[in-house]
Amino acid sequence: MPRYRLVVEYDGTPFSGWQHQQNGRSVQEALETALARFLGEAVRVYCAGRTDTGVHATHQVVHFDAARAWRTDTLRDAANAHLRPDPVAVLSAEEVAETFHARVSAIRRHYLYRILDRRAPPALDRFRVWHVPRRLDAAVMGEAAGMLLGRHDFTTFRASQCQANSPVRTLERLDVSRAGDEIRIAASARSFLHSQVRSLVGTLAQAGAGRWSVAQVRAALDARDRAACGPLAPPEGLTLVGVDYPEG
Amino acid sequence: MPRYRLVVEYDGTPFSGWQHQQNGRSVQEALETALARFLGEAVRVYCAGRTDTGVHATHQVVHFDAARAWRTDTLRDAANAHLRPDPVAVLSAEEVAETFHARVSAIRRHYLYRILDRRAPPALDRFRVWHVPRRLDAAVMGEAAGMLLGRHDFTTFRASQCQANSPVRTLERLDVSRAGDEIRIAASARSFLHSQVRSLVGTLAQAGAGRWSVAQVRAALDARDRAACGPLAPPEGLTLVGVDYPEG
Repeated sequence: MPRYRLVVEYDGTPFSGWQHQQNGRSVQEALETALARFLGEAVRVYCAGRTDTGVHATHQVVHFDAARAWRTDTLRDAANAHLRPDPVAVLSAEEVAETFHARVSAIRRHYLYRILDRRAPPALDRFRVWHVPRRLDAAVMGEAAGMLLGRHDFTTFRASQCQANSPVRTLERLDVSRAGDEIRIAASARSFLHSQVRSLVGTLAQAGAGRWSVAQVRAALDARDRAACGPLAPPEGLTLVGVDYPEG
Repeated sequence: MPRYRLVVEYDGTPFSGWQHQQNGRSVQEALETALARFLGEAVRVYCAGRTDTGVHATHQVVHFDAARAWRTDTLRDAANAHLRPDPVAVLSAEEVAETFHARVSAIRRHYLYRILDRRAPPALDRFRVWHVPRRLDAAVMGEAAGMLLGRHDFTTFRASQCQANSPVRTLERLDVSRAGDEIRIAASARSFLHSQVRSLVGTLAQAGAGRWSVAQVRAALDARDRAACGPLAPPEGLTLVGVDYPEG
């Protein structure tokens, strides 16, 4: 059975997240339904990073096994034709070894969180950014972010329903930059805990707003207590922008 | 009567363009209704650039006269509160001299046209870009754009319903650049004819696709004949991004 890897882009707004849910349609369901329609068989799709309701992806990676071989260009184009009108697009398809697994083989995930930091609400980027009408100090946020880098017990920054065995993760990158009214937070790690990026961003925003000192952000990390986390940043600002795999 | 200038951002998708129409709701109507609700009086709003159905703005400039003076921060915030849930946002408000007119005083308009040049349709930028699945040569488009710069009779590139007295305009800027899968066309002029930017972009795309030579683009301009224009580029890729006024 040939195995295929797809790079997928989606607008998370109308979906109840990546994974199958009791309520609402998931991205996984939209993709599996579209693939099944032209493959002529039910398929199960595995992804690199399960995104929550309202979270987007410009570069989600998935894999699935097909009963027979397909031209990869045909796979991509047929998937896109059958995905319409859902806001999900297959950017590329390639055949991979049967040892490849979108989640297990991944060695790094990259997320981007966008904050629109101005009085007026977003008109063009509605559902794409977190609107914070109060002015945030991106330099202070960057300083606080620096304290969170590296290998830590991130219990404070994981959702209570997180199913990971260990709360220890190594945060490789957490960069804060401002471009005009927009603050961008780029986060990279081998893997993230459930809601980790949104928990980190929510806490950095407390520092940016002057409500918490940088030392208080560090103390929140050290507390290893979910109750010490800042308010969770909303999903609409978050996008999965990349997944790395070992060469070859 | 104090006169106010607003900078307005909007998503053109749900609107029948800027101007009042028989069918469908216009941006002008949404804005005038929101202003009237808290001003307590009917107002007429004048804009710098009348955008067509589906065309966006990150920086439209408008003016209106109010019966009494308002704090500009209050104006901006109250307008935004009353505009909800329409995708229209007032970015700033300021009091201006009664000699200021959003359209007449403007000395330059800036538009950006975005083309998504890849096989897969847009998922996140749907209704924000023109999707061209066939590969375009941005360098050729840039070369063709260079031939259109300057003062010309743009009859070829104006809508048949254009009401301007003269088809002569001076195109000050028409830059084509590629960033990954996206081609961006930046156009600036004192003023544009009706559908001029979309007519120019549609014609440049013919050159980029290899259907027309650069000389044929030039010949289309010289023809001064609407029938010589390439297919009109769709509205969703176009955004009004700036309007200039004389200093002071």
